[in-house]
Amino acid sequence: PDSKLPDLGTTIFTRMSALATEHGAINLSQGFPDFDGPALLKERLNHHVASGANQYAPMAGTPALRRAIAAKTRLQHGLEPDPEQEITITAGATEALYAAITALVRPGDEVVCFDPSYDSYAPAVTLAGGRLVRLPLGPPEFRPDWAQFRASLSPRTRLVIVNTPHNPTATVWQADDFNQLWQAIADHPVFVLSDEVYEHICFTPAGHGSVLHHPRLRERAIAVSSFGKTYHMTGWKVGYAIAPPALTEELRKVHQYLTFSVNTPAQLALADMLEAHPEHWRQLPDFYRAKRDRFARALAGSRFKVLPSLGTYFLLVDYGAVSELDDVAFARWLTEHAGVAAIPLSVFCAGPFPHQLVRLCFAKQDATLDEAGARLCRL
Amino acid sequence: PDSKLPDLGTTIFTRMSALATEHGAINLSQGFPDFDGPALLKERLNHHVASGANQYAPMAGTPALRRAIAAKTRLQHGLEPDPEQEITITAGATEALYAAITALVRPGDEVVCFDPSYDSYAPAVTLAGGRLVRLPLGPPEFRPDWAQFRASLSPRTRLVIVNTPHNPTATVWQADDFNQLWQAIADHPVFVLSDEVYEHICFTPAGHGSVLHHPRLRERAIAVSSFGKTYHMTGWKVGYAIAPPALTEELRKVHQYLTFSVNTPAQLALADMLEAHPEHWRQLPDFYRAKRDRFARALAGSRFKVLPSLGTYFLLVDYGAVSELDDVAFARWLTEHAGVAAIPLSVFCAGPFPHQLVRLCFAKQDATLDEAGARLCRL
Ligand SMILES: CSCCC(=O)C(=O)O
Ligand SMILES: CSCCC(=O)C(=O)O
Repeated sequence: PDSKLPDLGTTIFTRMSALATEHGAINLSQGFPDFDGPALLKERLNHHVASGANQYAPMAGTPALRRAIAAKTRLQHGLEPDPEQEITITAGATEALYAAITALVRPGDEVVCFDPSYDSYAPAVTLAGGRLVRLPLGPPEFRPDWAQFRASLSPRTRLVIVNTPHNPTATVWQADDFNQLWQAIADHPVFVLSDEVYEHICFTPAGHGSVLHHPRLRERAIAVSSFGKTYHMTGWKVGYAIAPPALTEELRKVHQYLTFSVNTPAQLALADMLEAHPEHWRQLPDFYRAKRDRFARALAGSRFKVLPSLGTYFLLVDYGAVSELDDVAFARWLTEHAGVAAIPLSVFCAGPFPHQLVRLCFAKQDATLDEAGARLCRL
Repeated sequence: PDSKLPDLGTTIFTRMSALATEHGAINLSQGFPDFDGPALLKERLNHHVASGANQYAPMAGTPALRRAIAAKTRLQHGLEPDPEQEITITAGATEALYAAITALVRPGDEVVCFDPSYDSYAPAVTLAGGRLVRLPLGPPEFRPDWAQFRASLSPRTRLVIVNTPHNPTATVWQADDFNQLWQAIADHPVFVLSDEVYEHICFTPAGHGSVLHHPRLRERAIAVSSFGKTYHMTGWKVGYAIAPPALTEELRKVHQYLTFSVNTPAQLALADMLEAHPEHWRQLPDFYRAKRDRFARALAGSRFKVLPSLGTYFLLVDYGAVSELDDVAFARWLTEHAGVAAIPLSVFCAGPFPHQLVRLCFAKQDATLDEAGARLCRL
C-alpha cells in the first residue's frame, strides 16, 4: 500500500538496540535500565495475578491506581487532581502522548515543538493531519527563544508540546520558561502537551518544574508521565495523563478505542507500591546523580566533551575531537568499533543539526558504566 | 475543546459494567470471564517478572512470542507466517485494530463494514478521516447480502472490515463468505481487516473460517487476534496482527508510535504457555459449548427467545415477549429490575435496528449462569 508515513523508518531506538545486540556492544542507546525494579512491586504483581485480578481494568484505569497518582501529585506539586475526571491510565506514556495529540489536533492544525524533540510526536501529528512547526534549539543549554516562539504562533496553532526533563538533551525547564510560555499563549486558543516522564530524575536544586505548577497553564494542559522510568520497569508499559475534565474527556474518547484499558495486575501492583512507599521517588535524583557523576568522571579521561545533564538518565557528549563523521554515522561506528551503542541527536530534528553530539544512557549498573567509560577512553 | 468525536460517549461496555456494579446485578454485559486463566500462565509470568525481564520488549514483540504464534498458526491453519516480517504484538486486539485502520485509511477513503459491528471500528475510521459505509444485516443469521456489498464498493473504497466469530451477533462466516468477499473485491484495490479474536470459540462443525485460509485474500489482509479470550485473561492486554510484510511494515509504523511495545513479562509468559501446551485452545469449543447450552437450557423456561450462538461467548435473546421497550432502555431496565446486565444491539449499528435483541455473555461460572437464568425466568 502507499504509505501514510512514507518518510518513516523503524525508530532509532529499535535500530540502535538491534545493532548493539548484533555487535555485542554495551547498549547505552535506547533508554532502559540494566537493573531491576523494587522487589515489593514484583511481589504485588504476583499477588494480584495469583488472586485472579486478570480481567479488563476500567477504561480510565483502576480506581486504586488513579487515587494513588492523585495522592502522589499532591505530595509532589501540592495539588490533587480528581481521579475520576482528571487522571487516565494509558499503555505507557507513548499511548498518552499519541492519544492526546489525536484528540486535540485536527486536519490543518499547527503544533509547535522544540527541536530536538522526542521521536513519537511528529508521526502522531502527521497522522492527525496536523503540521508540526519545529523550533530548533542549540547546545549546550537548548533554551527556547521566546521571541521566535511567539513569532511561530498562527491562527492555526492548536497545541504546543513541551518536554522536561528533556529527552534527548538532558536539559530542564525552569519556572520562568513556563511563565514565558503562558505569556506567549495566554491570548491564543492553544493547548499544551507536557511530556514529563523523567519528572523524578531531575538534578537541579529547584527540582522538576511541571506544567501543573502553573495555575493558568494547567487549565489547558495534558501532563503525561509513566512508571517505567520511576520504578526501573520500562517493560511494564503503564503511563498516565493528568488533565482538566474537558480535556480528559476528549483524551479518553481516543484512549477507549486505541487500547481500551491497560494491564490490570500491573496497575494494581503499582497502586500498592505507591501506597506502601508514597515517597519512594524521592530517592531517584540521588540514585541517578551518582550514576551520572560516575560516568562523567570516567569520561573525563576521554576525548569526549560531556555536556551538563540536569535531568533524565541521559547525557550528551560532543565527539568533535574523536571523529569527523556525522552523528548518525558516528553512532553506528561507535557501536561497531568501540562496542558502545549511542543515539545520534540529529534524528530528533527536522532541519540540519550542525553539532557533533550523541546521547548516552547512564541508567546502568556501575560495572556497565565503568566498562563503557573505559572503552570510550580508548578512542 | 471542540471535539473530534462529538457524537461519542463512553463505550457501552463501560456504561453497562458500571450500571451492573451500581445495582449489584450479575454482569453479563461486557465480555469477560468471571473465572481465571491457566495456572501455568500465571506461574510463568511470576517467573519472568522475578527473573528481571521487566524492560522494553522489542517494538514488534518478543521473538519467542512471535515464533509461538507462527507455530500456533501452522497448527490451526496449515500456514506459518514469518515471525520477523508478518507478526506484530499489540496492546490487545483493540490496538491492532486501531493501528491497522490508522495505517491504511487516508482522508476521504471509504471503509465498508457490516452492522452490527464492534464499536471500536467507527471511531478509528473517523479519526483517520475516512468514511464508514455500514451495511445493515438482520437476525437471526446476519448473513451479508453480497449484491448489496458489491454495490457499496466505490473507487474510494480502501478497506473492508470483517469479524468472525462475530461480536455481538454470535454468527460465523463460512468459507463461502470469504470466497464471495474475494470475488467482490478481487478487481478493486481494497484491503481486508479481519477481527478474529474469538477464533478459538467457534461451535460449528467446520470450525473457524479465517481470512488466512483464503490464499488470495490473505495477501491483502490484516488478521487480528488476542490472548485475552483464549486464556480467560482479558486484563492482560496482549494481542497481535498477522499480515504480509508490506502491510506489516505500515502497521508497525503506527504501532511503534502508538504504544511502541507491549508488557514484556506477559509476552514471555504467553510464549511459554504456547510452547508447553501448543494445542490448549482445542479445548475451548467444548468448554464454552457446555456453558452456552447450560445457559440456553436455563432460558428455555423463560419468555426470552434464544438465538443460535455459533461462536464467541455471547448469545442473543429476543425479549419481544417480555417488554416493549427499545433495546437500550430494556438493557438498563433489565440491569436495574431483574439484576442481570446485558448489552443492547442497536449501539453497534448506525441506522435503525428494528429488533428487540440484547446480548448476554455466558463466559461465567455455572453458578453465575444458573442464577442469571433463574432471574430471567422470573420475568
Ligand atoms: C520507547 S523506546 C525509547 C526509550 C526512550 O524513551 C529513549 O531511549 O529515549
Ligand atoms: C474492550 S471491553 C469490551 C469487551 C468486549 O469485547 C465485548 O464485551 O464485546
